[in-house]
Amino acid sequence: MKLWDKGFTINDKIEKFTVGKDRELDAHLAKYDALASKAQANMLAKTGLITNEENDDLQIALDEVLVLIAENNFEVDENYEDIHSKIEAFLIEKTGDAGKKIHVARSRNDQVLVAIQLFEKEYLKHTTEKIVNLIEIFLQKADEFKNHQLPGYTHFQAAMPSSFGMWFSAYAESLLTDLYFFEAAYKISDQNPLGSGAGFGTSFPIDRLQTTQELGFSEILVSSVGAQMLRGKTEKSVATALAMICGTLSKMSYDLVLYNSQDLAFVKLPNEMTTGSSIMPHKKNPDVFELTRAHCNRIQALPNDIMMTINNLPSGYHRDYQILKEILFEPMMQFDNIIDILTFAIPQLQIKDNYMNQEKYDPIYTVENINEAIKNGTPFRDAYREVGLSVENGTYVPHKEFQTSHIGSIHNLRLDLISNKIEKFKLEAQVLK
Amino acid sequence: MKLWDKGFTINDKIEKFTVGKDRELDAHLAKYDALASKAQANMLAKTGLITNEENDDLQIALDEVLVLIAENNFEVDENYEDIHSKIEAFLIEKTGDAGKKIHVARSRNDQVLVAIQLFEKEYLKHTTEKIVNLIEIFLQKADEFKNHQLPGYTHFQAAMPSSFGMWFSAYAESLLTDLYFFEAAYKISDQNPLGSGAGFGTSFPIDRLQTTQELGFSEILVSSVGAQMLRGKTEKSVATALAMICGTLSKMSYDLVLYNSQDLAFVKLPNEMTTGSSIMPHKKNPDVFELTRAHCNRIQALPNDIMMTINNLPSGYHRDYQILKEILFEPMMQFDNIIDILTFAIPQLQIKDNYMNQEKYDPIYTVENINEAIKNGTPFRDAYREVGLSVENGTYVPHKEFQTSHIGSIHNLRLDLISNKIEKFKLEAQVLK
Amino acid sequence: MKLWDKGFTINDKIEKFTVGKDRELDAHLAKYDALASKAQANMLAKTGLITNEENDDLQIALDEVLVLIAENNFEVDENYEDIHSKIEAFLIEKTGDAGKKIHVARSRNDQVLVAIQLFEKEYLKHTTEKIVNLIEIFLQKADEFKNHQLPGYTHFQAAMPSSFGMWFSAYAESLLTDLYFFEAAYKISDQNPLGSGAGFGTSFPIDRLQTTQELGFSEILVSSVGAQMLRGKTEKSVATALAMICGTLSKMSYDLVLYNSQDLAFVKLPNEMTTGSSIMPHKKNPDVFELTRAHCNRIQALPNDIMMTINNLPSGYHRDYQILKEILFEPMMQFDNIIDILTFAIPQLQIKDNYMNQEKYDPIYTVENINEAIKNGTPFRDAYREVGLSVENGTYVPHKEFQTSHIGSIHNLRLDLISNKIEKFKLEAQVLK
Amino acid sequence: MKLWDKGFTINDKIEKFTVGKDRELDAHLAKYDALASKAQANMLAKTGLITNEENDDLQIALDEVLVLIAENNFEVDENYEDIHSKIEAFLIEKTGDAGKKIHVARSRNDQVLVAIQLFEKEYLKHTTEKIVNLIEIFLQKADEFKNHQLPGYTHFQAAMPSSFGMWFSAYAESLLTDLYFFEAAYKISDQNPLGSGAGFGTSFPIDRLQTTQELGFSEILVSSVGAQMLRGKTEKSVATALAMICGTLSKMSYDLVLYNSQDLAFVKLPNEMTTGSSIMPHKKNPDVFELTRAHCNRIQALPNDIMMTINNLPSGYHRDYQILKEILFEPMMQFDNIIDILTFAIPQLQIKDNYMNQEKYDPIYTVENINEAIKNGTPFRDAYREVGLSVENGTYVPHKEFQTSHIGSIHNLRLDLISNKIEKFKLEAQVLK
Repeated sequence: MKLWDKGFTINDKIEKFTVGKDRELDAHLAKYDALASKAQANMLAKTGLITNEENDDLQIALDEVLVLIAENNFEVDENYEDIHSKIEAFLIEKTGDAGKKIHVARSRNDQVLVAIQLFEKEYLKHTTEKIVNLIEIFLQKADEFKNHQLPGYTHFQAAMPSSFGMWFSAYAESLLTDLYFFEAAYKISDQNPLGSGAGFGTSFPIDRLQTTQELGFSEILVSSVGAQMLRGKTEKSVATALAMICGTLSKMSYDLVLYNSQDLAFVKLPNEMTTGSSIMPHKKNPDVFELTRAHCNRIQALPNDIMMTINNLPSGYHRDYQILKEILFEPMMQFDNIIDILTFAIPQLQIKDNYMNQEKYDPIYTVENINEAIKNGTPFRDAYREVGLSVENGTYVPHKEFQTSHIGSIHNLRLDLISNKIEKFKLEAQVLK
Repeated sequence: MKLWDKGFTINDKIEKFTVGKDRELDAHLAKYDALASKAQANMLAKTGLITNEENDDLQIALDEVLVLIAENNFEVDENYEDIHSKIEAFLIEKTGDAGKKIHVARSRNDQVLVAIQLFEKEYLKHTTEKIVNLIEIFLQKADEFKNHQLPGYTHFQAAMPSSFGMWFSAYAESLLTDLYFFEAAYKISDQNPLGSGAGFGTSFPIDRLQTTQELGFSEILVSSVGAQMLRGKTEKSVATALAMICGTLSKMSYDLVLYNSQDLAFVKLPNEMTTGSSIMPHKKNPDVFELTRAHCNRIQALPNDIMMTINNLPSGYHRDYQILKEILFEPMMQFDNIIDILTFAIPQLQIKDNYMNQEKYDPIYTVENINEAIKNGTPFRDAYREVGLSVENGTYVPHKEFQTSHIGSIHNLRLDLISNKIEKFKLEAQVLK
Repeated sequence: MKLWDKGFTINDKIEKFTVGKDRELDAHLAKYDALASKAQANMLAKTGLITNEENDDLQIALDEVLVLIAENNFEVDENYEDIHSKIEAFLIEKTGDAGKKIHVARSRNDQVLVAIQLFEKEYLKHTTEKIVNLIEIFLQKADEFKNHQLPGYTHFQAAMPSSFGMWFSAYAESLLTDLYFFEAAYKISDQNPLGSGAGFGTSFPIDRLQTTQELGFSEILVSSVGAQMLRGKTEKSVATALAMICGTLSKMSYDLVLYNSQDLAFVKLPNEMTTGSSIMPHKKNPDVFELTRAHCNRIQALPNDIMMTINNLPSGYHRDYQILKEILFEPMMQFDNIIDILTFAIPQLQIKDNYMNQEKYDPIYTVENINEAIKNGTPFRDAYREVGLSVENGTYVPHKEFQTSHIGSIHNLRLDLISNKIEKFKLEAQVLK
Repeated sequence: MKLWDKGFTINDKIEKFTVGKDRELDAHLAKYDALASKAQANMLAKTGLITNEENDDLQIALDEVLVLIAENNFEVDENYEDIHSKIEAFLIEKTGDAGKKIHVARSRNDQVLVAIQLFEKEYLKHTTEKIVNLIEIFLQKADEFKNHQLPGYTHFQAAMPSSFGMWFSAYAESLLTDLYFFEAAYKISDQNPLGSGAGFGTSFPIDRLQTTQELGFSEILVSSVGAQMLRGKTEKSVATALAMICGTLSKMSYDLVLYNSQDLAFVKLPNEMTTGSSIMPHKKNPDVFELTRAHCNRIQALPNDIMMTINNLPSGYHRDYQILKEILFEPMMQFDNIIDILTFAIPQLQIKDNYMNQEKYDPIYTVENINEAIKNGTPFRDAYREVGLSVENGTYVPHKEFQTSHIGSIHNLRLDLISNKIEKFKLEAQVLK
C-alpha cells in the first residue's frame, strides 16, 4: 500500500529504486514516529479535529506499536514502502476511521522530520554521555602516567620533553572542546517542525505549542517554510558534530599506531587488541586503532557527503533528502561503536619503560640547556647559538634535570582545572539536560 | 633575518616555497601578535623574567607597532619571513636586549596560535553582529511582504500556497540556528594557548592565568600538548561555522535566481543588481546572487579543504599547518563581503504582482479543497481521491479562499516569536558578549 | 579460523569491529579470488613450488568453488573472517597439504589486491558497455526530437532558442568524454600486483609474468612496493571515473526535474515514472530523477571519502584500507543500477507541445533580430543597443524565423559526427577490449 | 567599459564583487584569448563575415597584443572588467569597425571557454613533461640505491626487508600510472568549443572545423549545448589529474618526513633543504617535504571544491563558473612549483648507513626464516608457528642472508621494465604529442 496510490502501476524496478533502503533504515525512526504520532493524536483531540474516543483508540494502538518496536517485532515488510506507511496501516487496521484521520493536518514531510529530530536528540544525548565518560578515562590515565616522560615531537622530530600525563590530558581537553559542536547540533535538533506540513503549514487549526511541549522540544520552528528547511541541515549538523570528535580520535589513534611501532615503542597494546599477519609471525598489528582511525576519517568526510548531495537545491522538499538516511544512519551507529571500543581499549593501554634513555633522544633537552644558560645570564639568542653548535660538534651534554611549574606543564598538569571544565560542561550543556 | 638561522644558506627557490604567502597573509595577524606580545611582556615582567624597565620599553615599542599597523604602515618586506620576525626585529631595534628577551618562554608555535585565536575571536564577534543585522532585515521583509502569496514548491513542483512572509521569515529563522555553530567556533577560539610553547610548555615560571586574563580569554587551554592540538582545529571550527551560514545563503540565492527567471518571475531585482549579456540585450542576469551562491558553495567546501590538509597528522606541530592561513583567511574576507552585499541587496528586493493568477498555479489549492471536504465530513483518503480525480479529469475548481491559524502559517506568521528568539540569542550568546 | 592465529583469544567486540562488513562485501570478490588462486597454483606448479598433482587437486577444488559461487552457494559464515580464509579452508579440507601450500609465496595483501583489480576490470568493462548503450539512446532521442525547439537558458534565464536535439546530443557527447576517465581507471586496474606479497616481494622463485598472462592483465606492476601502493589508488580511480559520469547524469536529472515543473513544463514523464504526494493529489513528482540526481551527487563525493580515509598514510599496507570495500562497493552497485534505470527511463521521455508560443519566451530571439540587422549592415554593437532598447520599450518583435548552418547548431546537429566519436571510442578504448 | 553596458550605473560595491579576481587571473588566459581571436578572425574572413582587409588589421593588432603579453605589458587595468574586454577595446582602438566585428558570431561564453581549453592543454603538456622527467630521476635514484636495504613497513610496523631501490622505483611506477589521468584530462581539454556561442550556436554561417584545425584541437565539441557543458567539467578534469599525482607525492613526502626523524633516520636531507626551530637548536625540520605534503593534500581537495561549487546547476551557463578560475589557477601554479622543487630536491637525497644493524629490525627476517624452513620441507603453517614462537620466547635468530629472484623484488628490480613503460607512455600519450 502506498498512501499516494491513485491506481497507476509502477514499474517494479523503479519502485525498488525509489524505496531504496528505507525499509531497513526506518528501524531507527520507528519509535520516534510512534511517539510523535501519539502527540499528534493528542493534539488533534484537544483541538477537536478527532474525537476523544478516536484518540483513545489511537493511543492504545500506538502503545501497542511501541511495545512491538521494543520487542524488535515491527519490521517493515515488502507490503509497505516505509515505517510511516506501516504504522498508518496498523492504526487503520486497529482503529478504522480514527487511523485514517491521524494524517489530517500532517504531511509525510513534517512527520519524517519530527521523527528524525527526536531520534537525533536522543542519539546526541546518549553519545555525549559516553564521550564525557571517555574523557574522564583519559583524565584518569593522565594521572596514572603523569610521571612517564615522552619525547614531544614537532615536524615528526623528537623535539622536547613531554609526558604521557600531558598527552592523555591533551586528548581529554581536546575532546571536551569538540563537544561544543555536539551542543550546537543538539540545539538544531531540539526544535519542533511538526505542524509545518509539507513546508507550508495547514489550514486546520492545529496547536503546534502543544506538540512542542508534549514531545519535549525546547523550541518551535516557527516558519513552516523554515521548518522544512531543517531537512538536510539537521543531518549535516549531526554529521559535523561527529566529524569534530572523529578528527581528535583519528589523531589519537595515529599517535598510538606510531607509538606501537618498533621505532618508537612507547606503548604496549594487550594481545587481545592486536592482530597478526598471515605471513609474518612477529607482527602485532594495531588494527583496532588503524580501524578506529579509518572509520573516524571516513566520518570526517560525512558533512561533505551530505553537502554534496543537498547543495544547490532550492527551498522546499526534494526527494533527494531521502538518501540522507542511508548516508548518515550507519556512520552514526559506527561512531557509537567506536566510542564503545575506545572506552574498552584505553584503560588497557600500557606504557613501556626505558625508552627515554636512548641516545637519540638526548637532543630533546637542548631547550633546557638554553633555559639554564639564560637563567645564568646569557641572552636567549646567544644561548641558542651555543647549544646549537654543541649539537653540531657532538659536544652536547643534555640537561635532563629540569623542573616546570606553569599550568599545563610536565610537572604541574593541573588535571583539576580540566576536571572543572568537565563539570562545568555537565552542568551547563543542554545536550546533557 | 630568520630566527633559526645557524649560518646555512638556503636555496632561494626553497625559501620562496617555504615562506609561501605568509608575508601578505600575516597582515591579518599583525595587530593580534602585537597585543599578545604586550600581554607576554607584562607577564614576563611580573614574574621577574624581564625587568620593569625592559617591559616599559617593550610596551612603548609595541604601541608604536600598533599605531603603524592601524595606519597600514607595517608591511612585511622581503627581509622578514613573517610578521613575527618583523615585529621581533623592530623590538630589538627599538629596545636592544629587551627585544631579544621577549621570546624567552615563548615559541613561534604558541605565538602564532594565540594571534590566530585573537583574530578569530574578533572576526566571529564582528560577523555575528552583521549576520544578526541581516536576520533582522529578513524579518522586516517578512512583515513587509506578508500578504504576497507565493506558490510553495516541493519536488520543484508548485505544490501548495505559500507566501513571501513565510519565505523571508524562514531564512531569518534558519540563519539564526546556523549561529549556534558560530557560538561553538567562538568558544573554541576563546581559549588561551599562550604559554604552551612548542606544545610542551617551558621550564620558565610563567603565569598563564595572567595572559589569559589580560587578553580576555574565557578559558585557558590547560595541557600544553592540547593547546598545540588546537592548531588546525580552531581554523576548522571557523570554517565550519561559515559553511553553515553559507549553506543557508546559497539556498536563498538559488531561490532568488529561480524567482528572477521569466518562468517564475516572482521578484524584480533593481537594475543596479543585474548584469547584461554580451550578445543578448534582453538579459538581466542575477549575477550578484549567482556569485553569492558560488562563493557560499566554495566556502562550504572549506572545512573539507582543511581536513584534507591536516588529517592523519599525529600530535605535535607540523609545517603543514602554515598553509591553513592561505586556505582560510581569504574566504573569511569573502564571507564578510557576502554579508555586506546581501545587507545592501535584500532591502531592495521587489516582489512582482499577479503571478498567482496564472492557471498553472490552480492545483496548488488541492489541499484546501480536500481540507474543506474533510471539514464537511468526508474522510481524508476519500477526499484525497476525489480531488485527485477532478484534477485528472480537468473538472477541478481551486478553493482559493482559505484561512490558516496555526503558528508559522500564512495568516499567522508570528514574527514576534522569531524576534524573541533573536533577542534571546543576543542576550545569551558568548560570541556577542 | 584466522590464519594468523597464534593462540590468543580476541575479545569478541573487537573481533566484530575488525572484521567489519568483510563477510558480506567479499561476495563481490569471491569469484576473482578463486580465479587468481587458480593462476597462482598453476604458477607454483610450473616453478616447482608445488607438485603437478597438488596443482591438479587445487584446480579441481577451485573449480568447485567457482561453481558454488555461481550458484550463490558460497557465503562467508561466522567461522571465517573473510572470503579468503573461507576459500583457503575449503582447499585444505578438499586437498589437505596442497591447500596449505597455496599461500606459499603469497600474502593476504597481494591476494586481496589482485582480486580487487580483477573485480574492477570486469566492472568497468561491463558498465562502460552499458554507458555506451545509454549514449546511443540519447543520440536516438536527439534525432527523434531534433525539431522540438526549447528555450536555451543562461543564468537560469530564457536566453536563446535551443532544441531537444541539441539537448539530447549534448548529453550523449558529454557522457562520451567522461568515459576517458573510465579508460584511465581501467588502465590502473589492468595491472597485476600478484607476487608482490605484503609489498616487499618474496624469496621464492615465483614467475610473475605467468600469472600476469594467465589472468589477462596488460601490465605487471614491477616494483613490489609500488604494487602495494596501488591499494587505495585503484579504488580512488574507479570512484573518480564514476564521479565523472555522475556529474553529467546529475545535471541531466536536474534539467528534467525543472522541465517537469508547471513553470517550464517541457517534458512529460510517464505515470510509471512519477510518484504522488501523501497530501497533494495533483502532484506527479519526478522522484526517479530526483533520486538519480541524489545518488549521483553522493557518488561524486566518493573520491573525497576515499582520499579522506587514506590520505597521509605513508607507504606500506595499513588496515585502514580494509574499509575502502564498504565505502566503494555499494555505490558501485548503485551506479550500475542508475545506468539501468536511465536506460529504461530515457526512451520513455515525452516532449510536450506549444510551450514555445508563450510570450515570455519572445525575447530569446533578440540575438536573431541582431544578427538580421548585422546582415543588413548595422554594426554589432549598434544593433545590440537598438534591440535592447526595443525590449525595454515594449516595442520588440521577435525574429522567430532563422536558419543555422554550422556544426552543432539547431538546424545542423551533425549527429553523425557524434556517432563517429562513439565508434572511434569503441574501436580504440582498452576498457572495451 | 563593459560590453553589456546599456546605460545603467552599477553600484561600485557590487561591481567589485562581480568582477572578483578576474583582472589578475586573466593574465593566464591573455595569450590564449589572443590566439583564439586570431583563429576566429581568420575564419570570419574566410566565410565572408568580415573582409580580408579587416582581418589583416585584426591579425596585426592581435600580434601586437601577443608581443605585449610576452613582454608582461598587457595588464588588465581598472577600466576593464577582464582580459576579453581589454583585448576587444585594444582592437577597436587599433582597427575601428573591424574590432567591433570580431565578436560577431561569438559569445563571451565560448570565447572564455576556448581560452581555458588552450591554456589547460599547454599546461598539461608542459607539466606532463616535467613529471616524466621527475619519474626518470626516481628511477635513477632506484638504481643508485638499489643495494640499500630498508625495513619494509606494514601497519607502521617494521615487517620485512625492503630496499631504497624498491622504494624509489615504486614512486616512479606509481607516478607513471597517475599520468593516465593527465591523459584523460588532456583529451577533455583537446576539444574545440569555439562557435558554440552562449551555448546554443549562432545563425551566422561560421566554419567550426577551420578554427578547430587552426587552433590544433583534435576534436570538435559538436553539440553547442554540450560545448558549454564543458565549463566546469574541463576545470574539474584538470583538478582531478593534479589530485592523482598529488596523492602519490603526498605519500612520498610523508615517508621522507618519517625517514628524517631520529627514530627511523634512514635519510639525510641536505642543510639547504631543512629549516630550524626558533627555540630548539638541534632541529633540522623537513619543512620542504611537509609543505609539499600540505600543498599536495590541499590540491587533492580541489576536485571537491569545484564539484561543490558547480554541482546541481542545470545545463547552460551560470555566473558561478567564473569563480572556478580563482579556485583552480593558483593551485595549478603551485603544482607546477612543487614539481620543480622535487626535481631539485630528490637528486640531493642522501641515504644513511648502518640503520639495518639495529636489533629492533631483526624480526623483519622472520618470513625468510619461514621460507628457509619450507624449502627444507616444513609446511608453511607449521613453519609460521615455530618461528612465531621463537620470537615470543626470545630465541629467534634472524635469517638475514636471502636471495630474491622474481620481477620487482629486492635483488631483481627490473628497472628496465619500468623504463620500457615510460618509453611506451612517451610514444603513445596524446598529452606529449
